[in-house]
Amino acid sequence: MKLDKLIGERFKEKPADSVIESHGLMVRGGYIKNVANGLFSSFNIMRRIANKIETIIREEMDAIDGQEVLFPVVLPASLWEESGRYETVGRELLRFVDRNGSPMLLGMTHEEAAVHLVREYGQSYTKYPFMVYQLQTKFRDEARPRGGLIRVREFTMKDGYSFHTSHEDLEEYYERCHEAYEKIFARAGLPEVVSVASDSGMMGGKVAHEFMLLTAIGEDTIVTCSCCDFRANMEAAANIVLNESIEPLLPLQKIHTPGTVTIEEVCKHLKLPVEKSCKAVIYQKAVTQEYVVVFIRGDLEVNETKLRNHLKEEVYPATLEENSGLVAGYLGPHKTDKAIMLFDSSLRGINDLCCGANEEDYHFTGFQIDRDYGEVEYYDLAKAIPFGICPECGNSSLVILRGIEVGNIFQLGDKYTAAMDMRYTDENGDIKIPIMGCYGIGVGRLAASVCEARRDENGPIWPMAIAPWQVHICCLRADDDASKTYADELYENMLKNDIEAIYDDRIVSAGVMFSDADLLGVPLRVIVSPRNMEEAVCEITSRDKSIEMKVKLDEVIPTIKNLISQMLG
Amino acid sequence: MKLDKLIGERFKEKPADSVIESHGLMVRGGYIKNVANGLFSSFNIMRRIANKIETIIREEMDAIDGQEVLFPVVLPASLWEESGRYETVGRELLRFVDRNGSPMLLGMTHEEAAVHLVREYGQSYTKYPFMVYQLQTKFRDEARPRGGLIRVREFTMKDGYSFHTSHEDLEEYYERCHEAYEKIFARAGLPEVVSVASDSGMMGGKVAHEFMLLTAIGEDTIVTCSCCDFRANMEAAANIVLNESIEPLLPLQKIHTPGTVTIEEVCKHLKLPVEKSCKAVIYQKAVTQEYVVVFIRGDLEVNETKLRNHLKEEVYPATLEENSGLVAGYLGPHKTDKAIMLFDSSLRGINDLCCGANEEDYHFTGFQIDRDYGEVEYYDLAKAIPFGICPECGNSSLVILRGIEVGNIFQLGDKYTAAMDMRYTDENGDIKIPIMGCYGIGVGRLAASVCEARRDENGPIWPMAIAPWQVHICCLRADDDASKTYADELYENMLKNDIEAIYDDRIVSAGVMFSDADLLGVPLRVIVSPRNMEEAVCEITSRDKSIEMKVKLDEVIPTIKNLISQMLG
Repeated sequence: MKLDKLIGERFKEKPADSVIESHGLMVRGGYIKNVANGLFSSFNIMRRIANKIETIIREEMDAIDGQEVLFPVVLPASLWEESGRYETVGRELLRFVDRNGSPMLLGMTHEEAAVHLVREYGQSYTKYPFMVYQLQTKFRDEARPRGGLIRVREFTMKDGYSFHTSHEDLEEYYERCHEAYEKIFARAGLPEVVSVASDSGMMGGKVAHEFMLLTAIGEDTIVTCSCCDFRANMEAAANIVLNESIEPLLPLQKIHTPGTVTIEEVCKHLKLPVEKSCKAVIYQKAVTQEYVVVFIRGDLEVNETKLRNHLKEEVYPATLEENSGLVAGYLGPHKTDKAIMLFDSSLRGINDLCCGANEEDYHFTGFQIDRDYGEVEYYDLAKAIPFGICPECGNSSLVILRGIEVGNIFQLGDKYTAAMDMRYTDENGDIKIPIMGCYGIGVGRLAASVCEARRDENGPIWPMAIAPWQVHICCLRADDDASKTYADELYENMLKNDIEAIYDDRIVSAGVMFSDADLLGVPLRVIVSPRNMEEAVCEITSRDKSIEMKVKLDEVIPTIKNLISQMLG
Repeated sequence: MKLDKLIGERFKEKPADSVIESHGLMVRGGYIKNVANGLFSSFNIMRRIANKIETIIREEMDAIDGQEVLFPVVLPASLWEESGRYETVGRELLRFVDRNGSPMLLGMTHEEAAVHLVREYGQSYTKYPFMVYQLQTKFRDEARPRGGLIRVREFTMKDGYSFHTSHEDLEEYYERCHEAYEKIFARAGLPEVVSVASDSGMMGGKVAHEFMLLTAIGEDTIVTCSCCDFRANMEAAANIVLNESIEPLLPLQKIHTPGTVTIEEVCKHLKLPVEKSCKAVIYQKAVTQEYVVVFIRGDLEVNETKLRNHLKEEVYPATLEENSGLVAGYLGPHKTDKAIMLFDSSLRGINDLCCGANEEDYHFTGFQIDRDYGEVEYYDLAKAIPFGICPECGNSSLVILRGIEVGNIFQLGDKYTAAMDMRYTDENGDIKIPIMGCYGIGVGRLAASVCEARRDENGPIWPMAIAPWQVHICCLRADDDASKTYADELYENMLKNDIEAIYDDRIVSAGVMFSDADLLGVPLRVIVSPRNMEEAVCEITSRDKSIEMKVKLDEVIPTIKNLISQMLG
């Protein structure tokens, strides 16, 4: 394509609303345009990148025996009622009524549709295992879209669903898919993506992994270990606390602590280490509004995912109302029917805690849970912390990082198949419930993540495999006959050789030409100029600056072909 | 792929709800599965066909300088308010409110989104002409989905939008796109698709064409001429009537015609030819409920599209209510403020009409509009009829056919650009409004149309270019070692040679194997059997039965390659 025909504008200025670099670069380079909150149109340059990513995904899914299918975006509510999710999923599921009054929804994931498609097919054990996948538009009515294509409301997703007759078979296939995902990310130019254990959230099932690009701008928090291979999403990372109870039992004392409503204030006031305090964190159940109080060591934070999983209910952070019967700011463990009280395992074994005395302006010290409240069960409800204990190797070696989730895989078990009445007959004629795995990759988010990881201050540095074009021809002086004639021929020659080329023959300064080329981020660049013509050479450079060479004119095409094939790996 | 791994079921019985053959075959063959009214999931076999059609469309759109982009499915209502369509389009536009209370819609066409994408880019005349297109999911909340993929609510559509600075340029591009469409349909296996002049409906603009597969099951009515090239959708076909007024003026007579409320009854009762009658057809305006009475020659029917275009308003057929002030069944031309009275040009020049006398049980004969009602303007509001006068060659040679619309193209003019404030600066520095064309093809409907046109009683006969696979290998006796070994090798060899093969090595009867193969409709078939093995040959046949040959084993691959390349044209 000729650059002056490429539809889209390029800007010098970073858009005001962009908080991450890839978003700014993709708007500045004419890749995407905002249509509404969390909704984008893609220009051709973005579409080319997405098409290449989609091809890579298709190839790798086909290679693990996936069969491409297509489910509707618009689904009848009845299908989600079968699984129970029509009720349980929150407002991110967009529900509406069609012209005939039928309740419908916009598919944000397609487990139900997958079971619907194959439940008659999968009636005999002989058909298993099998996997279907689609590349389709999804809509999630996100509360807070952000970061350009990183978190949007509408996006193209590859979602795959596998069906199995045994957990061993599911695990084996899950492992194959894990490997296929590693290939996909490596081929798309992100070999550094790692998988981390994750929470299965609204999907159901127990074993799940997310594929993360580790980057400071990621919105996920990842717990890794500097001594072993342990990696988990914060949501799913166990927090291990060993309190050595060497302190003598102290007497319980009620102390006047006026105006100290946060645990930090109390500890400062009493000159106690915050690790010796028992903090009360208050939630309410979404449906019943019942209070849930989590007691946790003062230096730790509640992991709300663990709390939800423990309660098997939606909760949200709350503040105590006047008539709650609980003393805001001074809440400590006590027997009451005003709230559910839960104890994080970080409190186990501490003999002399400081905690609220359930009376305005008073705290206890020397609180010992068993003695002063009664025997309790401790649950792991806290977020892991830096230098925390690794659940795998046991060293105090946890490292907290941030990451962008570019894919996820789940062992779903029989949540959907059981609820939706999918059954098969096994070898012995017995009726059984198949189990499922599911596997997602967001195409646009992957492209944005590559941009985030492969860029400099001037633009993206696209890997060859997903670059919008392979070669960018810059004719530095299109008003110079020799240069223009050669560059025109070179462009035609590249097209004939199936080299994907974008050709800039505008009469603009070298500065404008190169800054536009930087924004397009095409991996190879061929520079045609009067000076080069005099020497009968072209300059070939790479966007990542690792290549810079002069090549004789008749060597340009073979050199470029060679470089492309090297860069494709 | 091995057939026993192909996900999807095949049925002997035609589904009860299928009214057209392609729908029945696509359900029976495991191509599609109904999810809800007008919503289908596609199995892999359908997805393969659609992917090939999409590739053909992309190639031809790129060849006319189209640039693939992507617009969101979900659009903010504000965008359609800019064009005015948020108000004017009916209930087929699905409207809803998102979690933040913003009114949104599901895109059924993307003119507004296209203008939004390019209106900053297109600010200078130097950028024109240009065209963007997408392949994207669309949703239209159709009142009556039918015919499998022929009329659905959700579908994949290629929609393109071109932008121009002059009508000449638009017309030239429109012609290029017309040719590209002919190539697309020919490549997809439907060279017989014809373009017909069409009404532009809710799209706006004046010149428009639909591409039609002529078939008795089509839901569009097409007017063609047996003497010339005239072809138009009934909605847009002019109806020309020449009444030779050789009859003398007769006196107006009021005649008692008890119980004859239809024009046929009256004419039968009075022994008059129905061509001598003036029928009243009653409509109501959708917004104001005002009555609109169309007077038309008794043998003709009202073309409601022409009526809507004339009124520039939505109308629907109505029956007179008791208090309407109009006499149901006996309505004739008379001066009244109870209704708008319109006269079809078929009435011009008839001197002795029979019509209602506006009095229960009475009709007039000898009615002459000019004399007995007053001077009127006549409009073309009638449907064309067989042997009607061709608007192009003037012969009484019209033929009425039926067709499926597989694509459409529109010259939109400035409807969207003007309303949405898209402007460019021309050579002289003047600010002008660009004009648009738009171009659509439904992928699923095209696939279903090919199936409708290329099939026999046993299944589809897919053209090579869009066939799910190129070759179907039938190993007739997979329990015979020699056959199975050879067939396995042949299958592997085909894959190595990039031949798309589906391989049936199930131990089933030849009958089952062939009837499944017929349902899959793969163009070439290779039959491996013990008898063939003894002769050291394979049978090669084509699904359309035009090819039947025995080929030596080492000639199979080259022969197949040769046939594929011939069949791809």
